Formats: sequence, structure tokens, C-alpha cells
Amino acid sequence: MRRLKSIAVVGVGLIGGSFALALRRAGVVAKIVGADRDGQALERAAALGVIDAVAESVSEAAATTDLVFVSVPVRAMGAVLHDVSQGLGPDAVVTDAGSTKADVVRTAAHELHEKMPRFVPGHPIAGRESSGVESAVPDLFRNARVVLTPQEGTAAQATELVRASWEACGARVTVMDAAAHDRIFASVSHLPHLLAFALVSEIISRPDGAELMGFAAGGFRDFTRIAASSPEMWRDIALSNRAALLEELDRYAARLALFRELVAKSDGPGLQRLMNEARNARRAWAGAKRSATDE
Amino acid sequence: MRRLKSIAVVGVGLIGGSFALALRRAGVVAKIVGADRDGQALERAAALGVIDAVAESVSEAAATTDLVFVSVPVRAMGAVLHDVSQGLGPDAVVTDAGSTKADVVRTAAHELHEKMPRFVPGHPIAGRESSGVESAVPDLFRNARVVLTPQEGTAAQATELVRASWEACGARVTVMDAAAHDRIFASVSHLPHLLAFALVSEIISRPDGAELMGFAAGGFRDFTRIAASSPEMWRDIALSNRAALLEELDRYAARLALFRELVAKSDGPGLQRLMNEARNARRAWAGAKRSATDE
Repeated sequence: MRRLKSIAVVGVGLIGGSFALALRRAGVVAKIVGADRDGQALERAAALGVIDAVAESVSEAAATTDLVFVSVPVRAMGAVLHDVSQGLGPDAVVTDAGSTKADVVRTAAHELHEKMPRFVPGHPIAGRESSGVESAVPDLFRNARVVLTPQEGTAAQATELVRASWEACGARVTVMDAAAHDRIFASVSHLPHLLAFALVSEIISRPDGAELMGFAAGGFRDFTRIAASSPEMWRDIALSNRAALLEELDRYAARLALFRELVAKSDGPGLQRLMNEARNARRAWAGAKRSATDE
Repeated sequence: MRRLKSIAVVGVGLIGGSFALALRRAGVVAKIVGADRDGQALERAAALGVIDAVAESVSEAAATTDLVFVSVPVRAMGAVLHDVSQGLGPDAVVTDAGSTKADVVRTAAHELHEKMPRFVPGHPIAGRESSGVESAVPDLFRNARVVLTPQEGTAAQATELVRASWEACGARVTVMDAAAHDRIFASVSHLPHLLAFALVSEIISRPDGAELMGFAAGGFRDFTRIAASSPEMWRDIALSNRAALLEELDRYAARLALFRELVAKSDGPGLQRLMNEARNARRAWAGAKRSATDE
């Protein structure tokens, strides 16, 4: 990719910070400017060398840059894109890192108006337990998948700049439409989070919930790890991807009812057949993931 | 505890092998005899020094021992206890390591008859991904919980011998009735396994299931790890703990319907409240688990 004079990272947390570190290491950007409504996070990002300069505001950050990278919670997207739109330079491209896409596209269309062709919606499939710029690492996106969901009106050069930036971070980019993205992640991410929250929620709704959990072991630990995730973030994801998530919930409830029926009928062969298929698919998936990471 | 002249381990896999290794290291047993319908597993157990002698049959193993430890799949319990009963010496105690208890108690009563007072049903809460005697380690039960479910007629000395044996392995023993045990583990273990199998099963039931899973990341990995468990084992557990599991499934379905309603109504505060409670409970649980292990 061509070397950029400057990028602006709005929201200097784990994702924004890691994006900055990865692009810097790849040598594809001269200057990285940070903006964040949390002034202390900005200071730490500067002290850690993640950013070169601190912008006074989001619109200032957007004014003199080639690429604006918006990595803020989905609920803050509207206000941030509003400010980006106010300041955005004539050739600058905007992208985001939100976990849902149709909702972000609607918000962006509302805020960016005639600048919408320069907005490339994106979603890096990466994260870790810890958050904040202190946790940022240049390798976070190496071999990670990134989904871009450009719209019909999105400028091809804008999409190519964002794709090249992610590839410079070591990521594998896939392009699809926003609805397909939301359906996929409702299925393999948003639904499992809701299921894990619901399990812990059900157990602790009982008088002896804490006692029950005292007997829980490794299976429970892994199954419910994602129930220790940020309630604010997952509330926002669930609501911003509501339609797709409701559809996934209904499909899951139907499948669970099928498992229940097999248990109720003591249908051992039927239960084993479904469990076998699931076990084989899960093992194949784990094997493929290992190969992808070893590449 | 008093030093035992001999114990018999029926089923020399991960659990039986680790029990043997732990008791040997604790110096509380002089001789360990193994029995298994898999002759090669027996040979490997002897070669690894996990057992001192190989019994020709289960009844022979039970004939000249102080304690018979039955660690076989729940579905094999009836046949094994039948053979144990045939050979059991006049003072020997019998215990098991099955994951469900009311069902095992019914089976044992049917097979052991007048020897039933010397049977102490047990369930060690320990395991690992790997199985087989090669994976056995003397530390598997250190700080692990073990539940014993003696019946009204169980001899107090029998329960005390089994308790002392587990404590010699470093385990923490809890006594409760079999129905309470089954209800607890339906909730924190059997249900999560079924939920994980059902999620993978639902996804792969679609034409594009493999493609969906290609986008899955760390949350999915941990949530579905237990869906890679043995289908035979979990089929048996689900069916042998059917009544309790069905009740848990119904409670969970009701809680999931509540989450669905909050999403459908876009009730952010309601959703966040439930997620917050779950997150806090999950974090407190993880903290308590760490302290217990660090003891």
C-alpha cells in the first residue's frame, strides 16, 4: 500500500491501539493522531508511543488525515461519526471496528450524508480478555479475519485503502454485505454470549445459586467465560443486531427443543447421532483454526 | 487413615489410574490390583506402575481387597457391579466415580442386594481433555471436590473409609443425598454440555454451517469446547439423569425466553441488569475458584 501521511485513531483502546501499533510496525504511516473522550487514555497512549499526537477533538483529528479509524462502542458511533463528518478532509477515508454492521451503516448514512461513499464499514474478529490501550499489541490482528461491508455507493478506492491497511496488520480480509455479516455473527458470537449470560442468570436466580456454582468445574468455566464480558457492550450489540439475533434465538430454541424431546423419550441413538455430528464438526473446526494460525 | 492391604481399581483409565497414583503416593495402600475389560489398558497400567497386579476378572479383583473403586462409564455400571457382587470379600467396601448418582444407586441396589450397605456412591469433580491411563496423574484430585451420596442404609464405617481415601488424594469431600447431587450437576454440568452440543448442532444443520463457523473466534471456542466431549458419555449422563436434566432444560428455556423478550422490546436497562448480575456472579465465582486452588 502507499505510505500514508497520517491516520487518526478515534477511541484509543485495545483495538484502536493495536491497529496503530500494527500499521506503525508495517511502516505504512508517518504520523498517528489519537482522539478519545477519555483524556487519561489519550495521555497513556501518547506515553506508550502508540500515538504521536493528541487531537483536541474528533473533528480536528479528522481534518488533516488520510484515514479515520473509529474504534468506539457501537452506542457512541452516532456522536463520533457526527463529529468526524464535521471535520473530515476532502480525500480522507473513514472506517470503523464495530461488532455489528447494518446498524452502523444506518447511523453512518445519517451522519455522513454526501461523505458516505468514503465510509467503509469494518469488523476485526479479534479481542482479548483485557481492554484498554495498555493491552494493545501489534500482533493482535495477525491471521485474524476482518470483515468489510462496503455498500453499493462506497468508493472502490476507499475500500481498497481500508483493505490494504488491514492486510498491512497481517489480517485476512473478507468482503460481504452488512446483513450477511450480522447474520453470521448473530449465530457464532452474539447468540453464544446471550446463552452464557442466560445460564449464569438462571442459576443465580435461585436461592441456592451460589451453592450450585460452588460445584461447577472446568466445563462450566469455559462455557461461561463470555458471561464475564462487558454487559454494556453486549447489551448494545444485542440491541443493535436485534433482528438477526432474534432469528438465531428462535432457531436455537427449536434445536434445544429437539434435544429435549430426545432426552424425554430416552432416545439414546438419536441423541448420540446429534452429539456425534456436533463433536465431529467442533473438532474439525478446532483443527482448521490451528492450521490457519500456524500458517 | 489406616493403611490398606489392597485396593482394586475396576476401569484403569484417567480417573481410576489417578486414584491409584494418588493413594500410592499418600502411602496408604500396600497393593493395587487392576481390572479392565480392555486387556491392553491393563498392560499399560502395569507397565506404567499405576497398578501392581492384573486381575483375571472383576470378581477376582473384588475377592481379596479392602476397597473396590469402580471407575467405568455409567452404562457399564450394572454389569461391573454384578461381577463385583459375585466376588466381594466379607469386609470389602465398594465405591464408584460415576457422574450421576440416583441412577447408580438404583443399579447398585439391584446388583449388590445384602452387600448394599458397603456401597458408597461417589463422584469426583475432576477430569481433563485427555483420557486413558497414560493421562493419569497423582495430582488430579488435589483440591478437587468429591461428592459422596451414602444412603440411609449405608454403613458409617464404609462412608468413612471412602472419605478418608479421597482426603488422602487431596480432595475436599461433601456428603449429600443422591437427588440433590443430580439436581446440582444437571444445573452446572449436564445442562451446559447439552447447550453447547445444541449450538454446534444448530449451526451445522444449515447449508452454510461450515462457512459460519469459519468466522467464529475465541468466545465460540470456549463456549463450545465441551461440545467436543465424548458423545457416548454425555448421551449416557443425559439419559441416566433424565428427570433432573429435563427440569433444568425447562428452567433454562424460560430464562432464555425472558432474555429474548428484553431483546425484542429493546429493553436496554432490563437486559443490562440481568447481564450485570450474571457478570458479577461469574467473576466472583472465578475469584473464589482461584483462592480455593491456591490454598
